[in-house]
Amino acid sequence: MCRWNAWYGQPLAIDELLYRTEHGLIDQSLHARQGVETTNGDGFGIGWYATGDRATPRRYRSVSPAWSDANLRDLAAHIESPLFLAHIRATTGTPVQQTNCHPFRHGRWLFVHNGAIAGFHEIRRELLVAVEPTLFEGITGSTDSEVLFYLALTFGLENDPLGAVERAVGFIEATAHARGIEHAVQMTLGFTDGERLWAVRYSTERRSRTLYISADRDTVQALHPDDPRFARLTDEDRVIVSEPLSDLPGVWLAVPEATALVVQPGADERLDFRPRAPAPETLMVGSP
Amino acid sequence: MCRWNAWYGQPLAIDELLYRTEHGLIDQSLHARQGVETTNGDGFGIGWYATGDRATPRRYRSVSPAWSDANLRDLAAHIESPLFLAHIRATTGTPVQQTNCHPFRHGRWLFVHNGAIAGFHEIRRELLVAVEPTLFEGITGSTDSEVLFYLALTFGLENDPLGAVERAVGFIEATAHARGIEHAVQMTLGFTDGERLWAVRYSTERRSRTLYISADRDTVQALHPDDPRFARLTDEDRVIVSEPLSDLPGVWLAVPEATALVVQPGADERLDFRPRAPAPETLMVGSP
Amino acid sequence: MCRWNAWYGQPLAIDELLYRTEHGLIDQSLHARQGVETTNGDGFGIGWYATGDRATPRRYRSVSPAWSDANLRDLAAHIESPLFLAHIRATTGTPVQQTNCHPFRHGRWLFVHNGAIAGFHEIRRELLVAVEPTLFEGITGSTDSEVLFYLALTFGLENDPLGAVERAVGFIEATAHARGIEHAVQMTLGFTDGERLWAVRYSTERRSRTLYISADRDTVQALHPDDPRFARLTDEDRVIVSEPLSDLPGVWLAVPEATALVVQPGADERLDFRPRAPAPETLMVGSP
Amino acid sequence: MCRWNAWYGQPLAIDELLYRTEHGLIDQSLHARQGVETTNGDGFGIGWYATGDRATPRRYRSVSPAWSDANLRDLAAHIESPLFLAHIRATTGTPVQQTNCHPFRHGRWLFVHNGAIAGFHEIRRELLVAVEPTLFEGITGSTDSEVLFYLALTFGLENDPLGAVERAVGFIEATAHARGIEHAVQMTLGFTDGERLWAVRYSTERRSRTLYISADRDTVQALHPDDPRFARLTDEDRVIVSEPLSDLPGVWLAVPEATALVVQPGADERLDFRPRAPAPETLMVGSP
Repeated sequence: MCRWNAWYGQPLAIDELLYRTEHGLIDQSLHARQGVETTNGDGFGIGWYATGDRATPRRYRSVSPAWSDANLRDLAAHIESPLFLAHIRATTGTPVQQTNCHPFRHGRWLFVHNGAIAGFHEIRRELLVAVEPTLFEGITGSTDSEVLFYLALTFGLENDPLGAVERAVGFIEATAHARGIEHAVQMTLGFTDGERLWAVRYSTERRSRTLYISADRDTVQALHPDDPRFARLTDEDRVIVSEPLSDLPGVWLAVPEATALVVQPGADERLDFRPRAPAPETLMVGSP
Repeated sequence: MCRWNAWYGQPLAIDELLYRTEHGLIDQSLHARQGVETTNGDGFGIGWYATGDRATPRRYRSVSPAWSDANLRDLAAHIESPLFLAHIRATTGTPVQQTNCHPFRHGRWLFVHNGAIAGFHEIRRELLVAVEPTLFEGITGSTDSEVLFYLALTFGLENDPLGAVERAVGFIEATAHARGIEHAVQMTLGFTDGERLWAVRYSTERRSRTLYISADRDTVQALHPDDPRFARLTDEDRVIVSEPLSDLPGVWLAVPEATALVVQPGADERLDFRPRAPAPETLMVGSP
Repeated sequence: MCRWNAWYGQPLAIDELLYRTEHGLIDQSLHARQGVETTNGDGFGIGWYATGDRATPRRYRSVSPAWSDANLRDLAAHIESPLFLAHIRATTGTPVQQTNCHPFRHGRWLFVHNGAIAGFHEIRRELLVAVEPTLFEGITGSTDSEVLFYLALTFGLENDPLGAVERAVGFIEATAHARGIEHAVQMTLGFTDGERLWAVRYSTERRSRTLYISADRDTVQALHPDDPRFARLTDEDRVIVSEPLSDLPGVWLAVPEATALVVQPGADERLDFRPRAPAPETLMVGSP
Repeated sequence: MCRWNAWYGQPLAIDELLYRTEHGLIDQSLHARQGVETTNGDGFGIGWYATGDRATPRRYRSVSPAWSDANLRDLAAHIESPLFLAHIRATTGTPVQQTNCHPFRHGRWLFVHNGAIAGFHEIRRELLVAVEPTLFEGITGSTDSEVLFYLALTFGLENDPLGAVERAVGFIEATAHARGIEHAVQMTLGFTDGERLWAVRYSTERRSRTLYISADRDTVQALHPDDPRFARLTDEDRVIVSEPLSDLPGVWLAVPEATALVVQPGADERLDFRPRAPAPETLMVGSP
């Protein structure tokens, strides 16, 4: 069922989150506590932006379980980034292969997903046909997650990120509903264009996978004044996680159901997340 | 650009062709002589039917180059089959992953391809949309070869194998032509339902990849009366190859351009291969 | 910490044990119940003998977790064997790579191990130096398990299998003890020469990993008279497992501590397992 | 037979050498011109030091052929380093696995090798036994190259790098000679401690694999005054390669037989390379 982390803030070595926390993503690949499965061994991926180049996302994906990838430790220690996503995979049916590992990437965008589209094999073709033709060739894998990403791109991710994802989810729910599939969408999402970071927690059934964001710097430092690591935090620093990286009280705030967060310079936003199917005339359905 | 072999006849250990010939497929993975590239190191696959079960194709595919796969030698020595296909891959652009290795499989069918669809990334979506919806979910990779196979299934491979492939190729040529893509299809194909084995050599440009079939048993034995291996051949035994496994004169007959071979119990057939686009009303174009 | 199975008896398709049991090895790769870890995702391997060739063990090993290996299902369904070992790996520190997957193979022999040598990194060199020079080049990996196998070969596995393993374990315990390492050996072992199958349960601490053997045919059929699968059993059929493949009462007999089983045509044997260090003059220590 | 590159100088993105040259290492993985084989598809590796941390070598190794590794392009573009080694592998007999890919690493050191030790399987045990016990546990693979590296560490690489390598090679030649193996050592080597970079070209037979170093900046700029890339060169910049990355005349200087180069701040050195077996009393032979 997957787990993921995102960092936004000062440049940070990726291994600070992955390896140097009590219960980081590497530990979660074998011992997830709040996921559907304890094991997330169907591959992993990291995507990041360099401090001086927020337009070009870089990526490293592998089918090795995260716990046994000999390269990841070196890479995570070497790569410092002000904005990165890390993801460990537990497949919901599609093959284990590098092109099916998250994050997915298109232009400036990186995208990770924890969850699934119910009945995906039945509606996969319909969903793919709705992807804008010029975007279609960017699809290299076979997961539901990647299709969700490309539907969001189709419905305007570049111009209206949250609206585009709401339309994509709405479209999937409508398509599934027409086939008698209930509870179509289960998701937490992390996506970014290198400037802002969005996180969404939502499921059709309103029983979503867990998602947390770190409390603001003042709160964290007040609660844990002796922690040297927290002493280095700034106002802008945020961590978003599928499940907490530590058991420290007060550090992790649960994201409510049907909620989107926007992490950006200055004040962040919290918004309702309301999927709705896009207007029919905007659909690509079937046209070559 | 790939190379492949097929065996049809008495039960034979797969390594007899792969490893125990002068210039077998393993050698061709590093030193192909008649392919576009000398190296075919982007994965390999074998597909076979057991003597007692001609309805259930088995398969082993790997992204390891054939020359370095430690398992293949063991498996090829152990697996005896009266009908098998073996393929080594040189990608024409799509990712190196197990789901992109040949043979492709659907129901009783196995399918291998040497060649490419020109401009595939431009027409991939159109071709996929034309695949029959109930067949669509069988597509797990991202190659042109797999799409060609699924178009053949769509256009009636079960009932009229050669006609279906002619329609699939014709459809691809028409689709490509409408986009200004010339010389759309380059191919040799090997496919089988466990009972008969088809081989086709064709290209839009009429400059096709090489393909050979072994001469009949009487000819081979007359030419090489002292060869103990040939002494074991029967009337039914045939080998089909991208390039000869040995330099023995008279053993390998080149398959002409635009030609299909049907290997079956009793007399085999040789037919012209004439692609033609299917009637428009039979097309799936766009319908969900 | 690994799990393994062995079959001895009538020819059986490998997938009967791996996939077609309630809690077979594939399920144990994600949900082991009696192992140190629930996950055994650091590779797997199968080794087998063909019915007509009990002198040549065949093998397939992969670093893919067993639960996601797309080839294994096909291969396990196709390969029928009267004697096979299957193993899923959870590394105790050495790299995840194909040469570190079990079973290990040398000549006629196959060998699997669940457990570890404590302090292995400290005594690895000493143990390797004690391996007979002409055997040494057979070592291709870096595990403690493989070294244990090669020490057994060194101390006479071909002529006195159980005695050789007792000497190997004794040597390891003595070497470790001299370095202050307690509880050096933890193991269940399965090994075979294609004719007989040995299983051993032992640990220096006398707190060994679990091991079970199937009850005899009459007992199993009397307990479960309506089970069609058990109806096919013969006197000779035995299954040896790290943990039971099902919850059926009476089918699985726990192997006691410090015990060796010998499965062979006719009556099987149960013997005490008593490690003792080999006579010093038989040691290779250091000689080039 | 392998190919490798090294960069020493101003911080440079790794992809500048690997991808953005006429005939870079990625091209050489399929089309080597001066190697034993044209294909070097048995894995690759890069090792580098960050600008601010010359004591901690980082590494990325993979069994994927370099030409098809989807991660390498991203990583090579992102990693900027003042000192790095890159290597593509063609195995001379040992398994294809990540632990057998170069560069090898120990403490501050990185090490790559093109060549082989003749008769390695016969003398492997002797060579391993001569490795200093406390160093022995660093050996994780099974190649001759890694053993050569660890013998160099054993014979004083930290204190007298070139002398240590001369002693290692001398020891190997003596050991091989005693077994009747002629022409034991074939090599070009690249190794570094993060501060200096050594390159050696040598073979027992005096018919060594090719090796080149870039001409000094003034020469290169005088020959090719309009090349914008060369305009950025400094006095300190050096590239060392198995075969030239381009056909530009005067840029690549062949390293003579039995020669070592030392690249360092200020003037570089060129020295004779003279292997000699170490004094017997310094040998570890056999001692536990």
